[in-house]
Amino acid sequence: MRISQLSAASGVPIPTIKYYLREGLLPAGEQTSATRAEYGESHVRRLRLIRALLEVGRLPIASIRQVIAAVDDEDMDMHHVLGTAHYAIAPTVEAHAEDDDWRRARDETDRLIAGLGWLIDPEAPTRDELAQAILTLGRSGMPATGETLRPYAEAAARLVDYEIGTIPFDGPRESAVEALVVGTVVNGRVLDVMRRLAHESASARLFGVFED
Amino acid sequence: MRISQLSAASGVPIPTIKYYLREGLLPAGEQTSATRAEYGESHVRRLRLIRALLEVGRLPIASIRQVIAAVDDEDMDMHHVLGTAHYAIAPTVEAHAEDDDWRRARDETDRLIAGLGWLIDPEAPTRDELAQAILTLGRSGMPATGETLRPYAEAAARLVDYEIGTIPFDGPRESAVEALVVGTVVNGRVLDVMRRLAHESASARLFGVFED
Repeated sequence: MRISQLSAASGVPIPTIKYYLREGLLPAGEQTSATRAEYGESHVRRLRLIRALLEVGRLPIASIRQVIAAVDDEDMDMHHVLGTAHYAIAPTVEAHAEDDDWRRARDETDRLIAGLGWLIDPEAPTRDELAQAILTLGRSGMPATGETLRPYAEAAARLVDYEIGTIPFDGPRESAVEALVVGTVVNGRVLDVMRRLAHESASARLFGVFED
Repeated sequence: MRISQLSAASGVPIPTIKYYLREGLLPAGEQTSATRAEYGESHVRRLRLIRALLEVGRLPIASIRQVIAAVDDEDMDMHHVLGTAHYAIAPTVEAHAEDDDWRRARDETDRLIAGLGWLIDPEAPTRDELAQAILTLGRSGMPATGETLRPYAEAAARLVDYEIGTIPFDGPRESAVEALVVGTVVNGRVLDVMRRLAHESASARLFGVFED
């Protein structure tokens, strides 16, 4: 298809497509004449992935480039491609002093992950993220322990069993990464809002307020 | 206690305490002389709540004022006090066209909540939040239905059964609201990062990558 058709098929305006081509995020089409290039389904998929990373993942172009480099790197196995996407969309851990409190929270995190038997890279930024939350809970007088965190770990593990089955691993890598990013970000929002909805409902029952 | 002791007991600097007094967020102490006021435990609790709303909930002063007005309003029942705090810490729903897609997502949300038997205010902003997520999923080619959303609703309900039991409803309202805010925000972060950790582990198993 020509660039105008690619634009129609993907919903991405032509100037934006040209920008992605210049930035190297989208591979060049097959040049069929000096002024004309031919694009295919892989370009449509790539544009879908870029859009998901940009609009749903809210990633800057530099991070999108990293994720796409991972998708394109045939020497990288799927686990590490998914990991690249996962780490890119993770919130940045706030600045913190590397003091005793931090080290205790970080140790608690590592112990917890080991106790769960989860296979997590020792350098995963998610470890710091969890340590940060444990630190905040402690400082708010609600200390987190393996005991208090277990319901969250169990809920997460149960959901992931379900979610992992919805990712299309049998197709092109791009589609799997797109589903992972959209699923992680948006279903994360779904879970968060469901939890606040369930709170409201539980409170209404507890205090006998029935709004109907 | 005097203002210096209140500062020591709460960890809040004296100029900040004076600012909260001027803003009406902290009630005045009992004036014992022209230049001296006496503060009590309720002031320490109030400062804890303000800190939780400010540092954990990241609320602007105007929203903190609303939550505190609810806590102070003896005519407002506890369910509505908690609701005021909950709605204040909810993320703002992004701007969206009030078009057919939006109305469909909003109807789907209301149907889902009714189907779950949850008691949710018809005007709850969380309804719009969920509709927004449903809209994004649909636009990303991952349409959400009662079926695909049920695992999230079930996980949320199970967690809330646990969480509601950790809120101290038998003490002052301030402490309950503080626990609700910290618990909702920080345990929300815990749940989100646990989910991404569980994903990494599930992917490591699926693709046979064992990092140890």
